[in-house]
Amino acid sequence: MAGSSHVYQAPRGTRDFLPEDMAVRLHIEQAWRTAAVTHGFLEIEGPTFEHLELYTSKSGPGIVSELFSFKRSGGETEFALRPEFTPTLARMAAAQGRGLPVPTRWFSMPWHYRAERPQRGRLREFRQFNVDVIGDASPAADAETIAVALAALARLGLTADDVQVRISHRAVVNRMLNDLGVADDRITAAQDLLDKRDRIEPDAFAAKATELGLDPDAVTRLAAMGGEAVPASTDPATLSEVWSVPAETLTELVELREELEARGLLEFCRWDISIVRGLAYYTGAVWEIHETSGNERAIAGGGRYDNLVESFGGPSLPACGFGMGDVVLELVLRDRSLIEQGADLLPRPDAFVLSMTDENDSAVVPMLSRLRAAGLHARTTGKSTRNLGKLLKDANKCRARHAVILGEEFADGSVTVKDLDSAEQSTVAVDELVDRLGGG
Amino acid sequence: MAGSSHVYQAPRGTRDFLPEDMAVRLHIEQAWRTAAVTHGFLEIEGPTFEHLELYTSKSGPGIVSELFSFKRSGGETEFALRPEFTPTLARMAAAQGRGLPVPTRWFSMPWHYRAERPQRGRLREFRQFNVDVIGDASPAADAETIAVALAALARLGLTADDVQVRISHRAVVNRMLNDLGVADDRITAAQDLLDKRDRIEPDAFAAKATELGLDPDAVTRLAAMGGEAVPASTDPATLSEVWSVPAETLTELVELREELEARGLLEFCRWDISIVRGLAYYTGAVWEIHETSGNERAIAGGGRYDNLVESFGGPSLPACGFGMGDVVLELVLRDRSLIEQGADLLPRPDAFVLSMTDENDSAVVPMLSRLRAAGLHARTTGKSTRNLGKLLKDANKCRARHAVILGEEFADGSVTVKDLDSAEQSTVAVDELVDRLGGG
Repeated sequence: MAGSSHVYQAPRGTRDFLPEDMAVRLHIEQAWRTAAVTHGFLEIEGPTFEHLELYTSKSGPGIVSELFSFKRSGGETEFALRPEFTPTLARMAAAQGRGLPVPTRWFSMPWHYRAERPQRGRLREFRQFNVDVIGDASPAADAETIAVALAALARLGLTADDVQVRISHRAVVNRMLNDLGVADDRITAAQDLLDKRDRIEPDAFAAKATELGLDPDAVTRLAAMGGEAVPASTDPATLSEVWSVPAETLTELVELREELEARGLLEFCRWDISIVRGLAYYTGAVWEIHETSGNERAIAGGGRYDNLVESFGGPSLPACGFGMGDVVLELVLRDRSLIEQGADLLPRPDAFVLSMTDENDSAVVPMLSRLRAAGLHARTTGKSTRNLGKLLKDANKCRARHAVILGEEFADGSVTVKDLDSAEQSTVAVDELVDRLGGG
Repeated sequence: MAGSSHVYQAPRGTRDFLPEDMAVRLHIEQAWRTAAVTHGFLEIEGPTFEHLELYTSKSGPGIVSELFSFKRSGGETEFALRPEFTPTLARMAAAQGRGLPVPTRWFSMPWHYRAERPQRGRLREFRQFNVDVIGDASPAADAETIAVALAALARLGLTADDVQVRISHRAVVNRMLNDLGVADDRITAAQDLLDKRDRIEPDAFAAKATELGLDPDAVTRLAAMGGEAVPASTDPATLSEVWSVPAETLTELVELREELEARGLLEFCRWDISIVRGLAYYTGAVWEIHETSGNERAIAGGGRYDNLVESFGGPSLPACGFGMGDVVLELVLRDRSLIEQGADLLPRPDAFVLSMTDENDSAVVPMLSRLRAAGLHARTTGKSTRNLGKLLKDANKCRARHAVILGEEFADGSVTVKDLDSAEQSTVAVDELVDRLGGG
């Protein structure tokens, strides 16, 4: 060791989760998992790293520069840490071939990695909730994934005042790009540029747009493309003129509106053609969830990718889904004071066992073992005092539900149980203690 | 893409977790988490990759050849995927300095990585349960970590007939190595060799032992070191002669025996000086859990590492802990038929909603939304038939608890609820449905 102090820190853009940080993350993950499970999605997971080509081949220029890649010492194969889950999901679905139930509803919530410069809301290592429907081409499937995303946010306290779903469609965007003079073989590059629009300088944007073959007037129109978002209560069929696109590009959005309405989600949604998404594989509706103030990055993003499973050697199966990272979400929750102190999210002990006499000291460990074997969360003090007030302070500090006090009555097979929420106190036979504390 | 089919597979030594595989893993993780939480341990997590030096500096020769290491494109810093958790834990504890509560009881259960040739029980990517006590030098702390390991295994159905804890002590092993003629500066290398004893050829073992300065007689004695395991009911103080070591090297084992007895764990334990552990940082008691048949690798391994936190720039804090991987554990559980079919571990829907009339079809999605918003797991069918028998078959296939049938009575604000376990059926007002299904 060179004695360099950086070794003693987490790598830049990664996080150490101390217990209170971890409690916050588990709180978020619990909301994710419950939202997905209640909607009938099944949890899956894939490897943390995949063959590098899995990403370079399908995700487009937006992803390749962001990969952590490596070989095994002495090995030839190139791997990359997972930057997004969709290629793994499509690979797993393709591997099932015709055996995959249709539709398949899968979710996952593993780590992802991006080798970018860390910024607010964007770290090198982040947790991401991924929710996908495979084998269902109907806008009902898109609406189901949006419903899961909003259900997870609702569980965390976010309402339609806090978050908006901004929905666009690749058919509309591509038609508009064509009309601006972007050739079909440059559509992917133009989407990527549009997606980065707010993050690069106007001059750089104009230069790149010119490279795509656009004249100065078209560059200006590209920079302004999208305009105002429209409430989702507006029938998309009426937007043909506003967006200058043929009515047939809007068919799926019309159906999607009905599906969102049936789920009571219209108030959360906007039609917003400025949403593009940077990934090359999207084919239909694309959407992002933003908090309403505009102070943070997108909370979630997703869309329809009907060709990806087939492109990985699987059957031709339409699919759609989204990803929601933990980093922006936690910032939004903190901005709005919707996260408790981590300490208040830690698991509460059911029993805090205390010996009040020398004879009972040796009974504490067997008592703890007995309670724990019954599934109860049981702790004791490290202090040697017999001052009950001080000991109960210890018990309250870790938010124990009950103090189990081994006093004189222990010789007769009983303990004193003090409910630390209500302060009620009673004598309980040792044989009935597990029942009394809710174990079993 | 070169069209190479390997891209469509998970990298060698990693796994795809389809829903039923994932259900088994979540079942194991639930046992881990419950065992740790009930024993008063708090969950933490660190980065998936660390600075490479964090591992090369402290873990010894056993770990370095097993690392996946990489740099960021254009970056200088070398990182490595986490092969074990202890260095991260020691780094995190050191960073808290004097602010760390003493004792601190932490656990984690993240992914780990080893760049070895995959073998039975040993993959390149595996999940590992890590449990540690920091700031407690007493053998009670060692016993607590052993208790957590055994509690997790007990939750998965493993008894003292299935698993044994084999306990050794670095002071005893090192004294025996000294007596064989191993110099102090070669003790670490000798420990590493002893740990690999069963995995390398006798000739290679002898060659390496000779390199450590041992004469042929000592090489033979090193190969045989350890001998028979002794039941932990045996007082370690009586083993001074058996192992030819001074009584003072056995003090901690004598205390550890008392602590194991207080926890009712003696029947699980053996004194077994053949246990060495490959990592250089251990300083005291070391132990492994093996299944009794000897057919699989160690299920868990750990020990005391009293100098590690200080060596990472923290205060001088004794510590001990263990790791338990998911791969061997799952093999052991399957060997003993202790794992249910994954399908039986998937979450059960609370409600399977079915429309029996054309008028009610449009009510299914709003009903699902309502039940899900109340925290209930609700699904419906993809089939268009009105044949109730076929539809209930669908409901039973996913092990739904109740069918919620929207028939003629729905016009009057009621549905039919069929309990699919008991086959009991009743009419329930829509307003009372959530309560009836156990949501809220």
